Amino acid sequence: MSVTVALGFEASGVAAGIRRASPDLALVRSVPRAVGGAVWTTNRVQAAPVEVSRRHLELAEPQAVVVNAGVANAATGAAGIADAEATASVLAGRLGLAPEEVVVLSTGVIGVPLPLERVLAGVEAAALTLSSEGGDAAAEAILTTDNGPKQALADGGGFTVGGMAKGAGMIHPRLATMLAVVTTDYPLEPGEPAELLREAVDATFNRISVDGECSTNDAVVLLANGASGVSRDSGSDARFADALHAVCDGLARQIVEDGEGATVLLEIRVAGAETDEEAVAVARRIATSPLVKTAAFGRDPNWGRVLAAAGSAPWNGSFARLDPERLSVAFDGVPVFERGAPTGLAPSLEGVAVAIDLDLGLGAGSAGYLASDLTYDYVRLNAEYTT
Amino acid sequence: MSVTVALGFEASGVAAGIRRASPDLALVRSVPRAVGGAVWTTNRVQAAPVEVSRRHLELAEPQAVVVNAGVANAATGAAGIADAEATASVLAGRLGLAPEEVVVLSTGVIGVPLPLERVLAGVEAAALTLSSEGGDAAAEAILTTDNGPKQALADGGGFTVGGMAKGAGMIHPRLATMLAVVTTDYPLEPGEPAELLREAVDATFNRISVDGECSTNDAVVLLANGASGVSRDSGSDARFADALHAVCDGLARQIVEDGEGATVLLEIRVAGAETDEEAVAVARRIATSPLVKTAAFGRDPNWGRVLAAAGSAPWNGSFARLDPERLSVAFDGVPVFERGAPTGLAPSLEGVAVAIDLDLGLGAGSAGYLASDLTYDYVRLNAEYTT
Repeated sequence: MSVTVALGFEASGVAAGIRRASPDLALVRSVPRAVGGAVWTTNRVQAAPVEVSRRHLELAEPQAVVVNAGVANAATGAAGIADAEATASVLAGRLGLAPEEVVVLSTGVIGVPLPLERVLAGVEAAALTLSSEGGDAAAEAILTTDNGPKQALADGGGFTVGGMAKGAGMIHPRLATMLAVVTTDYPLEPGEPAELLREAVDATFNRISVDGECSTNDAVVLLANGASGVSRDSGSDARFADALHAVCDGLARQIVEDGEGATVLLEIRVAGAETDEEAVAVARRIATSPLVKTAAFGRDPNWGRVLAAAGSAPWNGSFARLDPERLSVAFDGVPVFERGAPTGLAPSLEGVAVAIDLDLGLGAGSAGYLASDLTYDYVRLNAEYTT
Repeated sequence: MSVTVALGFEASGVAAGIRRASPDLALVRSVPRAVGGAVWTTNRVQAAPVEVSRRHLELAEPQAVVVNAGVANAATGAAGIADAEATASVLAGRLGLAPEEVVVLSTGVIGVPLPLERVLAGVEAAALTLSSEGGDAAAEAILTTDNGPKQALADGGGFTVGGMAKGAGMIHPRLATMLAVVTTDYPLEPGEPAELLREAVDATFNRISVDGECSTNDAVVLLANGASGVSRDSGSDARFADALHAVCDGLARQIVEDGEGATVLLEIRVAGAETDEEAVAVARRIATSPLVKTAAFGRDPNWGRVLAAAGSAPWNGSFARLDPERLSVAFDGVPVFERGAPTGLAPSLEGVAVAIDLDLGLGAGSAGYLASDLTYDYVRLNAEYTT
């Protein structure tokens, strides 16, 4: 259900034939007037829909989102911009909106022109099937190499937050080949969605890594229409922030669990850093280390590789501060290295999740990160599949 | 021959039984008095031999180097320091040197104590077999997961530079599980070896990447004994710098070619950046991108992934400056993307090397980088092998 679980939202998913026979085009729209905002990829190479939608959001509050899978419409020049604009215009016409009230998202292969006729035909078909039951269909239609849909919802007490996402490869901080649409019937003011989303994304989607890549198309969009009728106070605002965080966290976790070729979920927790910023740097370095990730695939509690990664975490033009003599490491709660010395313990890592805890023993900085392992299937998928 | 090709150097390699039956302990020494210097890993976690040798170099000019493979003597606490000191002392005693005239290097598994008795017995045996023909034996004895020895030499005209290295996994800028010993009979003054080495390393060993890792043990050591008898002038100094660069470059290239699981050598060249520093950042980002490296394994001229990587090259707290509309990319000299638009050409990549050229079209900054591809064998070696 996800994006249609909040009151006043409709969605649909159709097979537009963009690069496959299964559903590959999704719509989400708010029936009452909504306010919205987004967080975008920071890659210097940005896809046409990112450029177009960013501009739309500066001009108007978004009322609808159209997502196509299969073709990213990135590195497609002026024609790509025109294609994204045309997509927004056609949907706007169908829904009685201004084109700038439409957000356009694309994911898929880079450098291939959007098959515009099929996309526009898909938009027309999807507009006809919009429904308050359409969340599942939409969540299916936005996937690429994902093994299955990612949906999450949270009940805030009197209002709801729901979201859908696609992930798979290129998942990394500052977003990646990752799209997410989150809807809520909580009442927000213009400008608030972008700000609240930024906080939630920083603690969730920006703390996951499948392969350390950052794509040209990443986006998280939030629409809020107030249809719950709940009245706001500081208590409900706090519950909304929690619910938004929970939905983003749920989607982020599903993206890592379904990372390309992933067999294990790595939960990396760093404590005792001099600063939170350095804790993030250390956690990220471990989360993106090919040696740690292949060891995880081999279910090897290889703390030596964790140490080597932790000691080379880029921060502030150097490496994050760390003293091996004060450092402790545990795998799944079993201490393997304590204050500079191996304990001799070697836990067997048998679960589908592995927790790696580091205590740097220096200060109060802490951070968490989720990562997938690096496997044969990751190599196979990316050596064979042109993305 | 490598480290014994320059006059006045002896080397040997013996099987000390540290973790295997084949040769795993090497010595190099200068017969006439030498001057020397080193470049070390910048990892915050540094192995005991790195700490010990760094201190030795502050106290005296190095006359001999002992290298053991199999055990890295990293994360081994005070006992590890004592073991490295003992190794230096025993060799110094055999060769009539002060302990601080000995450089100790170790490579192999982290967190395992050095089997000191075997190492010391190996040092005694190796000291007895030192010979001016011993370069090949030494180059064999320092390897771990390498497929074969790495040696290089350059004739400067009246003097020689020779070197040996080990590489394989964890190869990355700021050095890695990489050791190299370079010898020359060119006359240098105290302090010069470290300075000249830093320049050469920055342009060679610091421009290669197998997996983006930076190890606890990396070191490059240079010994210079002046035994060639050549007299110095600005011409010979320039020839020496060139010869040193050539030897470091030759060793660095062999390390990438023999990267764990590697099937192809990626030569990444970036031109037209605003600054050299940004060119390095972009080249490094491409060289360490799992998506570019798996595409190379699949012999896929996937310029979309190159663009996405180039657009997210960390630099100065943000990403290196880049404008997709001015950017051009070629694979093996065939333009695939020119000033913002795909050319439609798709070269078949059939060689054992693939050249990726980027012209950012912004300024005069340029840089090169060598990388290996990311393959099933990389995953297999690192999921199965505890390092």
